Amino acid sequence: MSEKGKLIVISGPSGAGKSTVVAEAIKGRQDVCFSTSVTTRSPRPGEVDGREYFFIDRERFDEMVEKDELLEHAVYVSNCYGTPRAFVEEKLAEGLNVLLDIEVQGARQVREKVPDSVKIFVVPPTLEELRRRLVNRGTESAEAIENRLARARQEYGEATFYDYIIVNDDLAVAAQELTAIITAEHCRAADRMEYLENI
Amino acid sequence: MSEKGKLIVISGPSGAGKSTVVAEAIKGRQDVCFSTSVTTRSPRPGEVDGREYFFIDRERFDEMVEKDELLEHAVYVSNCYGTPRAFVEEKLAEGLNVLLDIEVQGARQVREKVPDSVKIFVVPPTLEELRRRLVNRGTESAEAIENRLARARQEYGEATFYDYIIVNDDLAVAAQELTAIITAEHCRAADRMEYLENI
Repeated sequence: MSEKGKLIVISGPSGAGKSTVVAEAIKGRQDVCFSTSVTTRSPRPGEVDGREYFFIDRERFDEMVEKDELLEHAVYVSNCYGTPRAFVEEKLAEGLNVLLDIEVQGARQVREKVPDSVKIFVVPPTLEELRRRLVNRGTESAEAIENRLARARQEYGEATFYDYIIVNDDLAVAAQELTAIITAEHCRAADRMEYLENI
Repeated sequence: MSEKGKLIVISGPSGAGKSTVVAEAIKGRQDVCFSTSVTTRSPRPGEVDGREYFFIDRERFDEMVEKDELLEHAVYVSNCYGTPRAFVEEKLAEGLNVLLDIEVQGARQVREKVPDSVKIFVVPPTLEELRRRLVNRGTESAEAIENRLARARQEYGEATFYDYIIVNDDLAVAAQELTAIITAEHCRAADRMEYLENI
C-alpha cells in the first residue's frame, strides 16, 4: 500500500525539548525528513544552499509570498524565513513524512494552507521544569528566561488549535508517542478509503 | 498524568481477522479490557454471569433500552444483545481502554452516544484473500461464503464513518497500527488541554 507522506507540524516553547523528542523518534527511520526553509539571510561559513537553507534574495522571497509559494513565512531581525510549498509537496508525493519545527504563528498559517497537516504541540511537564531546563542551558540572562516563561504560558493557549499534545517528561515515552501519532495518522479512514474502494 | 480510558470500537467483515489483530495488539497490556455485553439468551454450560455475558431477562433488557442504559443493542435470532453503558463508563473512569467488537449497525449507535469513541474498521487486504480465509475455515457452505463476501462489499461503504482503517495483511503491522492508534488517541489535544491548563 503506497501512501502519500504526512506534513507534521511541531511547535512548543523553547526548552520543551522538541528537537530531542524528534531526534529520538526518527532515529533510523527512512520515512521521515525535515523541511528545508528559504531565507534571505546570507549563508554562514560551511552552510550549503539547499541543505541548511535555500538562500534567496528579498525580491525572490517577496515573489514567493505573492505567488503563495510559501506554506508559512516570518521575519526575524530583518531576515525573512519561509517554508517552500513545492519542496514539501515533492517530499510528500515521494511518500516521505515531512517535519516542520515552527512557532505557533507559522503553524497557524500552515493549518490554513494544509488542513490535513498533523499539528503537534510539545510541552515540558511543568513550567518549573521549563525554568530549570532554561537555567541549565546557561545561555540566557535571568530576564530572558522570565520572558521565555511568560511567552510559554501565553503559547499554551494556542495548544488547543493543535491535534495532539506531547508532554515531554520521559523522553522515551514522548518519542514513542510521536512515533505512534505518525503511524496512526497513516491509518486515517479518509486516506485509506481510496485503497478500500479499489479492492 | 492519569487519564480516562478510551472507548475503542472495532468493526470489520467476518474473516478480516479482527480478533487476531486485537489479541496480538493487547498481548501483555494491562490498560485494555473488553466490554461485557448483556444478553437475553440462556447461559451455555460453563458460561459465568458477568464474565462471558451479563445474563438478563427480556423485561430488564427492554427497560435498559427504554432508560438509555445501552450504548448499542441488537436482536439476533430472537435473542437480544447490548453494551451496558454503566459497565463501560466504570472501566473508562478507571483509566482502562475498553474494546468493543461490534457490527457496523452497533458502531453507528455508539458513534452517536459516545462521540469521542475511537472507531476502527479492520479489513482484509483484498476480497479474494477474504474468500480464501473463509474457505479455509471450512465451517461454511459456498453460498454462505458468497453471502458474507457480498455483505463485506456492502459494509465497506460504512468504513468512511470510521476514524481509522486497518488493513490486516501483515498481522504484526496491523497489531502495531492498532497499538499506535490507542497511544496517539491519548495524546489528543482536546484531552490534554486540561492538564496544560493546570500547570
